[in-house]
Amino acid sequence: MMPLSEFSLIERFFTQSSPRNAVTRLGIGDDCALLAVPAGHELAVTTDTLVENVHFFGGDDPAALGHKALAVNLSDLASMGAKPVAATLALTLAQVDEDWLAAFSRGFLDLARQYNVDLIGGDTTGGPLTLTVQALGILPQGTALRRCGAKPGDFIYLTGDIGDAGLGLKICHGYVCNAPDLPLLRLHRPTPQVANGLALRGTATACIDVSDGLTGDLGHILKQSRVGARLDWSCLPLSDAVLAYIADTGDWALPLTAGDDYELCFTVHPNDAGKVPDSCRKIGVIEQEPGLRLHQSGLVRPLTTRAYEHFS
Amino acid sequence: MMPLSEFSLIERFFTQSSPRNAVTRLGIGDDCALLAVPAGHELAVTTDTLVENVHFFGGDDPAALGHKALAVNLSDLASMGAKPVAATLALTLAQVDEDWLAAFSRGFLDLARQYNVDLIGGDTTGGPLTLTVQALGILPQGTALRRCGAKPGDFIYLTGDIGDAGLGLKICHGYVCNAPDLPLLRLHRPTPQVANGLALRGTATACIDVSDGLTGDLGHILKQSRVGARLDWSCLPLSDAVLAYIADTGDWALPLTAGDDYELCFTVHPNDAGKVPDSCRKIGVIEQEPGLRLHQSGLVRPLTTRAYEHFS
Repeated sequence: MMPLSEFSLIERFFTQSSPRNAVTRLGIGDDCALLAVPAGHELAVTTDTLVENVHFFGGDDPAALGHKALAVNLSDLASMGAKPVAATLALTLAQVDEDWLAAFSRGFLDLARQYNVDLIGGDTTGGPLTLTVQALGILPQGTALRRCGAKPGDFIYLTGDIGDAGLGLKICHGYVCNAPDLPLLRLHRPTPQVANGLALRGTATACIDVSDGLTGDLGHILKQSRVGARLDWSCLPLSDAVLAYIADTGDWALPLTAGDDYELCFTVHPNDAGKVPDSCRKIGVIEQEPGLRLHQSGLVRPLTTRAYEHFS
Repeated sequence: MMPLSEFSLIERFFTQSSPRNAVTRLGIGDDCALLAVPAGHELAVTTDTLVENVHFFGGDDPAALGHKALAVNLSDLASMGAKPVAATLALTLAQVDEDWLAAFSRGFLDLARQYNVDLIGGDTTGGPLTLTVQALGILPQGTALRRCGAKPGDFIYLTGDIGDAGLGLKICHGYVCNAPDLPLLRLHRPTPQVANGLALRGTATACIDVSDGLTGDLGHILKQSRVGARLDWSCLPLSDAVLAYIADTGDWALPLTAGDDYELCFTVHPNDAGKVPDSCRKIGVIEQEPGLRLHQSGLVRPLTTRAYEHFS
């Protein structure tokens, strides 16, 4: 470890070669960054924090952590149908470990590059390891995918499998799985559904990303849209690993309640079902009756929509 | 302490009655907030983190902390000449203490109201107390006050007294002062120089806020403008409390090196000196020769421009 000044530290590890998109007018290096939002567009803003020993552990791969810190924010942009353009990073570090920083910034910037996201600012402070990213995206005015637009009769979809990240966490806690690689990858290196979010503009009536578990996140759509829903167990997209886990443990609730999958859950009017990307799976229907019901092997189970609570 | 869900916690303490300005199209409650930047304007973005036991202590007044967490970010907007419009708050809390949250949010939202700033999003997580605010402002395209525009011959100004916040910190650490109220107020409830920042658009050739100490922050202007400067000790705006502290201790460097004052330091071409607000004080001149020199009682002292380092 070398004593590095805060400024040279940020400069050394987090400087990108040049702005990736025309929205960025001024990046890191002054008191503020400057963005030029194109005419007729709105700016989408989101922020998410990852805390050591809560969202990750000290020994976790720093490159994966850099990836995930940005990915969870890009996922929020995706769920609104916004195109990512820029991000800021507030990094609180107990110590300056150059190897850790090199790997973390590589993970962060590799994902940023993939989506043409400019790192436009940040703050580095000493203290318990905490990562706060704010991501900024643009979208044509009035096209944002909100949580409040679902109507009775709308079909409910997922962009991909759920439960794998939750299984990955079980594996971290000691569950023995024959094929742990995919669940662990989904947990540590989630893929933000940016392309799907853009494709769903004008088609989805409501949308959210599955960060806290399907029942809780779909619950936000139901609450803000003032509707209920029915889910069909047989239609849920589940990986072989999750199916094997359920067969082994009987814990069928895992894919419904575990977080961190970062797939999009969205609703579409039946007339627009043909516009939904082929990779998405229909999992249920919006109903007038409040509440969430799971149809499973001929039974109807009421599900709670209470999301994961950090302080429970 | 009550068990409160993360969502109702944010909703309860941080919901504002309604958006304060036309830029905010959608506030808290969905995956992202939405802003509409007026035509011909740019968006200024900044972020700053306050960490317990680094920037403040657990027993500090939470209302002052809420104020300061936002104020230091509004100060960055002010130093670019941007008008504040919105902010997000990432709050990491060891526990849900309702009294603490009520006071903290009051301090934050009172300052937000004063500047028509909308709190448009946030993330609440469990962990060691850490506060990250991101602030967003707007300014007419091309009018940003940068660090890189100072030219030899430009006058150097401060918007107000420096050293008081540093003296406040000395008082917290046990220094006995006859009139501690003002220094402590300046330390705990800094005033972002928003109106001065707006007034300096088109007049200042370079600008920065004094957050890490005058020599370090002016040093950023000198480095990015590739110039040097001369400061005149007799011109520095110092409060009676700071003058008394220097007379008592001989520590004349305090107002040059202590941070947290959040005044603006800016440069102006001599022809434009008449446009500088009356409350500002001329403290020196930009020179071609690199480095920073202090003229003090007939002596010329070279000053280091190294800023405060969190990891030193």
